[in-house]
Amino acid sequence: MSTLTIGLFGFGVVGEGIFQVLSTKPGLQAVIKRVVIKHPHKTRNAPQHLFSTDADDILNDPGINLVIELIDDAEAAYHIVKKAFSKGKSVISANKKMIAEHLTELIRLASECNVSFLYEAAACGSIPVIRNLEEYFDNDLITGVTGIINGSTNYILTKMAKKNLPYQEALKEAQANGFVESDPSLDVYGLDARNKLKILTLHAFGMVISEDKIITKGIQSITEGDLVFAKEKNLVIKLIATSKVNALGALEEVSVLPAFLPRFHPLRLTDNEFNGVLIGGQLSDEQFFYGKGAGRYPTSSAVLSDISAIRYGYKYEYKKGIKQSDKVLPSKSKVFVSLSRDLPELDLSVFGAVVETYRNSHYSYTVLETTLQEIKPLFDLHGVSVIRYLD
Amino acid sequence: MSTLTIGLFGFGVVGEGIFQVLSTKPGLQAVIKRVVIKHPHKTRNAPQHLFSTDADDILNDPGINLVIELIDDAEAAYHIVKKAFSKGKSVISANKKMIAEHLTELIRLASECNVSFLYEAAACGSIPVIRNLEEYFDNDLITGVTGIINGSTNYILTKMAKKNLPYQEALKEAQANGFVESDPSLDVYGLDARNKLKILTLHAFGMVISEDKIITKGIQSITEGDLVFAKEKNLVIKLIATSKVNALGALEEVSVLPAFLPRFHPLRLTDNEFNGVLIGGQLSDEQFFYGKGAGRYPTSSAVLSDISAIRYGYKYEYKKGIKQSDKVLPSKSKVFVSLSRDLPELDLSVFGAVVETYRNSHYSYTVLETTLQEIKPLFDLHGVSVIRYLD
Repeated sequence: MSTLTIGLFGFGVVGEGIFQVLSTKPGLQAVIKRVVIKHPHKTRNAPQHLFSTDADDILNDPGINLVIELIDDAEAAYHIVKKAFSKGKSVISANKKMIAEHLTELIRLASECNVSFLYEAAACGSIPVIRNLEEYFDNDLITGVTGIINGSTNYILTKMAKKNLPYQEALKEAQANGFVESDPSLDVYGLDARNKLKILTLHAFGMVISEDKIITKGIQSITEGDLVFAKEKNLVIKLIATSKVNALGALEEVSVLPAFLPRFHPLRLTDNEFNGVLIGGQLSDEQFFYGKGAGRYPTSSAVLSDISAIRYGYKYEYKKGIKQSDKVLPSKSKVFVSLSRDLPELDLSVFGAVVETYRNSHYSYTVLETTLQEIKPLFDLHGVSVIRYLD
Repeated sequence: MSTLTIGLFGFGVVGEGIFQVLSTKPGLQAVIKRVVIKHPHKTRNAPQHLFSTDADDILNDPGINLVIELIDDAEAAYHIVKKAFSKGKSVISANKKMIAEHLTELIRLASECNVSFLYEAAACGSIPVIRNLEEYFDNDLITGVTGIINGSTNYILTKMAKKNLPYQEALKEAQANGFVESDPSLDVYGLDARNKLKILTLHAFGMVISEDKIITKGIQSITEGDLVFAKEKNLVIKLIATSKVNALGALEEVSVLPAFLPRFHPLRLTDNEFNGVLIGGQLSDEQFFYGKGAGRYPTSSAVLSDISAIRYGYKYEYKKGIKQSDKVLPSKSKVFVSLSRDLPELDLSVFGAVVETYRNSHYSYTVLETTLQEIKPLFDLHGVSVIRYLD
């Protein structure tokens, strides 16, 4: 066990939270020596002498042995992390975009530099999902990870369903309440969930999948008609991230898609900004983990657990391997496709076997038995909503 | 990392499950060398030469470095575990009664003999609650652990509520379906939950509490009248185990009690044989863990994770300490007390401030503002049901 001397990048709500906890809990034996920020003239709840705008004040300080990186800019974060490694400093990061984009390289560099690189806060906030996949479910018996792993879209979908709001209004409400960024595209197009799913797939199965091989569609096309349909059938629409292997250990699905959840599905109860993750195992049936996925305290909690782990010399061991695996088997699925009325008629039978169709004056839908690969071309068409059925 | 050579005590459903997994997954690098059983003439799904009825065939075999103890008899298990330690063997056990009763001694012995002693399966089956308390929530910021940690009583309560069955019939149904032992007393009187709560309290807070200081009442006195009351108020009755500390880290409640859960309580959805645990933290808000608490596969899953951890030299570190702490502050609570009609009238105002009373020809209830300590004398009175309100 060692005492940690920390250099912190970013002093937003999470950074400030970490600073406060470490200041009041000397038992954690971790001290923040320096905080690098972008805007030197903001008033901050910490002594002025801690702050600097020069990254090298942390990176070149041999007295600092742990870098905590909590900035928004993924590109800048990437360079900070690489330099920290090269200087022999361990790193905690919450930047899922940066981590997902440079996953293999960063893991390799951390290993070469013999430092810890932990990022529990990057997936599902306070839910200890990476640590559990890494440590507790470290045998080869996991069959799948399925979850609601983006709180912003879950908040929007919950408001749409419970308050009968159209997508644009629910989005505005989410932004007003601080649950979605002013630029919501990473969230609503499913890209944030995709980044997290890439990380979870590695820790669940030892496989690294390229972003473009993850079948991804966000919630931006979901219409009020879809919500009415869901309600009539007692279904709930959620943005679901899934990573699954077959009995031989080959990837059979890696996707982020809107899904209809049936009546007793455990993820159905994960509402508002919460996250929920199901880990399916050959033996354990399904384990369900639930908690807040983002925000000041949940993220601080995850970072704090990583700090504590590093104090004990903990590293992710990637016991299942780190294998590039871009081959995903065709994922059979029942899929609902709805079209708004202003679209020209589409022959959906080219995308799979049609099992149901409905049409009225302003709305039509078709249910297909197909594979997720086959319907991918539909994802980018304006006015087309695609929702898969989940068992 | 070492290869494990295992001596297994007990070959019931869990033992057999472990044997099958290890036989088919050579990647786990753990081999069962010997199985000690009580009844040599039963037919078993494993080669005959593995079996013995002599414990010393495992305990005196220097080639065996891990003992997995899965027998019912707590007293026999205790002696097996102690002898295994003294022979330098690590131990995995699922015997919560044995572990709770000898907690401090066994931890000390394992430490003195420098072996691992893991028992994830002893609390909440496949839910990795001990490991998460130990590793992930290892800082001093946990405020409470609250859960449904006995699947048998939860199964009975679920049937009582959903099928309007009286307690005795629901108990019989649970026994017929294998969810309750033929002698149900450990479960229904809350003693099994109490054993688990003692273990969880240690891993959550570093405190060892004596069994008789844990305020405990089971589900045996819950009546149909109580269920009707609960339904009318949109409450659900569950057997809830709680361990909580105040802001100064002092225990302010350690209890196993029937409780009314309000409408949106996260534990309300934990039905049938499932377990659910809420871990409350100063930062993480509440984390919810859900899964199967007992049975062949969930228990096997937990044992398997312990095997894997031992292969990497893992030991519980008890970072929060192992302190005997029998002082629990008075726990203020709102409590519902119902009396069956054949009881003489009781003056309940001696047990707290009466805030509500109701009486008809065959049933009466009183709601008290009190402390759990004050109402303890009521627990053993026949025909008296005590249910606390949970926020």
